[in-house]
Amino acid sequence: MRSTIAILGAGAMGSAFATPASCHGYDVRLWGTHLDTAIVALLREGRVHPRTEEHIPGNICVFGHEQLADALAGADLVACAIASEGVQAVIGAAAPLLRAPRAILLMSKGFAFDPEGRVELLTDTVTRLLGAQGVTSPVVAVGGPCKANEVAAARPTATVYAAADLDLAVRLADELSTEDYRIEADDDPIGLEIAAALKNVFAIALGICDGLADRNRQPWHDLKAAVFAESVAEIARVIELVGGRPSTAVGLAGTGDLEVTGLSGRNRVYGELIGRGATPRDAFEQMRSQELTVEGHAAAGFSRQLVEERGGTSFWELVPLLELLTRSLEVGLFGEAVERALADAVLPGPKGARPGHLAAGPRGHREQPEDASPPGA
Amino acid sequence: MRSTIAILGAGAMGSAFATPASCHGYDVRLWGTHLDTAIVALLREGRVHPRTEEHIPGNICVFGHEQLADALAGADLVACAIASEGVQAVIGAAAPLLRAPRAILLMSKGFAFDPEGRVELLTDTVTRLLGAQGVTSPVVAVGGPCKANEVAAARPTATVYAAADLDLAVRLADELSTEDYRIEADDDPIGLEIAAALKNVFAIALGICDGLADRNRQPWHDLKAAVFAESVAEIARVIELVGGRPSTAVGLAGTGDLEVTGLSGRNRVYGELIGRGATPRDAFEQMRSQELTVEGHAAAGFSRQLVEERGGTSFWELVPLLELLTRSLEVGLFGEAVERALADAVLPGPKGARPGHLAAGPRGHREQPEDASPPGA
Repeated sequence: MRSTIAILGAGAMGSAFATPASCHGYDVRLWGTHLDTAIVALLREGRVHPRTEEHIPGNICVFGHEQLADALAGADLVACAIASEGVQAVIGAAAPLLRAPRAILLMSKGFAFDPEGRVELLTDTVTRLLGAQGVTSPVVAVGGPCKANEVAAARPTATVYAAADLDLAVRLADELSTEDYRIEADDDPIGLEIAAALKNVFAIALGICDGLADRNRQPWHDLKAAVFAESVAEIARVIELVGGRPSTAVGLAGTGDLEVTGLSGRNRVYGELIGRGATPRDAFEQMRSQELTVEGHAAAGFSRQLVEERGGTSFWELVPLLELLTRSLEVGLFGEAVERALADAVLPGPKGARPGHLAAGPRGHREQPEDASPPGA
Repeated sequence: MRSTIAILGAGAMGSAFATPASCHGYDVRLWGTHLDTAIVALLREGRVHPRTEEHIPGNICVFGHEQLADALAGADLVACAIASEGVQAVIGAAAPLLRAPRAILLMSKGFAFDPEGRVELLTDTVTRLLGAQGVTSPVVAVGGPCKANEVAAARPTATVYAAADLDLAVRLADELSTEDYRIEADDDPIGLEIAAALKNVFAIALGICDGLADRNRQPWHDLKAAVFAESVAEIARVIELVGGRPSTAVGLAGTGDLEVTGLSGRNRVYGELIGRGATPRDAFEQMRSQELTVEGHAAAGFSRQLVEERGGTSFWELVPLLELLTRSLEVGLFGEAVERALADAVLPGPKGARPGHLAAGPRGHREQPEDASPPGA
């Protein structure tokens, strides 16, 4: 019997994943939510996807919102590529229809609330909702520098599949890799998820530097590079706080994903507007008026709550850039003040640095564990 | 008595360092080599520096090539900002004129040959040449994401001072930091130097991705991000090979410097030409005809020899991207073949990957030390 992959979500990433998924002889099904109705109609007419501007492969069956049961019937693998705010509803609806698939590939990025209103990782959300229906299939977190339009066009892409069960991740990587869509297997889904969600927040800061450069008609590259290095360090600290492996911040899922997010995307555009002089509120309204979702804005709210729940308010001393992006921007810091605040958050001490800044000693030296090294070093 | 800083080299970085150095009440002297004669004349006339397009501070004395002894008389600190190929000659000439300065700040990036023709780090070269004249002043390596034009313009910049004697690095960081030029003290000069030299090589690969995007009029961001992450990992492996701390590849001196080098600079431009379809030889000639030095080209030759001297040819399996950049480009790989070779070098296995690729297991999983973490995590 032919194996079946059901992709939940016909947005950019779900549709894009159809390209590599269709290379392996699977029966690939693409299901659209009620928000994807127009996309489903276009794809059924053989038109390009409106967001990736690519065709989906010819051998893919497209299912409409009302056909969830048909899309999931007998699925061995389920890929969840729903926007993070829709994950609970879709997985809640899908769970009773599943027959123990081998794995759920979670391509959604972001956070959710648990029943007590605490912030939880999406892998935990999905595992919980499936478990409530007696489905115990393992959830595999998918991340890395992987833009939907490039995956859809079969341009060379590295992605990471992370599961607590490394053997499972390795098997799936082996099975689903193609010449152009190459999968690294990893066993730190927590680190991957934190990096995937937070990179959208830090991309705002990279965008601010681009905006400062535009406003001043001069490169602001030194500050942008310092923001980049600090972002990686802070992602590592949050990963450690939540129980993942800090070095995940360094590899494809961290550095790689931050790099690709800083090259393009809406979070960077939002930051650019602020760097050019807009207030964060005006920048956000400007994005909204163009129907551009700033994922990093929602992720900032969640990550603020996550940090305070897990680390307490004293943890902000270790993540001054995240603090700036999740708190100070909210209160309307802009213009010249943004540049100074960004510099104070990311440049080494001592001048103007707050106590405990970057876990630095009194004169800007950062303590480093002697055995620290990036993955694979 | 007023303390004195002598800056050797009136090129972009030497002249730029005059900006922060002049903030601390030092007597700052800027000395130009015979290659800097025209620059020295311009600066003495109060004109802007031709490369940074910024003025030097008014309280700086500028010394011509024949005035080396005057420039160095009584210097407490000496900053060496000579192009790497000139370091031996200048330090050789300066050494007999030094009276035990507190430290030599080495701002030059690259490698040199030791008397036996083996590749050595520039800090070792300088220490050796000073020692031959009985000068035992410690050499401090200077790196990080620090473009000369931005330092000269006092835009926010993070830099790293690394010395085996951490206390010395901390004291200098404390003394020389300004509001905009912030210094992180570190005790891994080997790691800093390797990162500073190799980033120019890896920036060529980042440029190739930009060139592929130009040629195809589509973003090639996924590949560029994978190149970035792989570059950091390979810099870490070479640092470890040479006896430094692999985590230095992750912080400001590694990730930060690679980011700033990938944003602009000649190495990236050289790579862009190759990505657009030029042969490496034609690209190099095109750069040379515009009098643009590609530092990464010289660094590639040195790093190839360094890797083989320290690690043997089997080490190439651990640094496939560096191998591509230092060997395959030399033999004229270009066009479509460059994209495929780059993808094979940086994307996770297994398809098309060579054995041992990225220290990967048979299915693309990279072994990671459990205790690995980026600096300060």
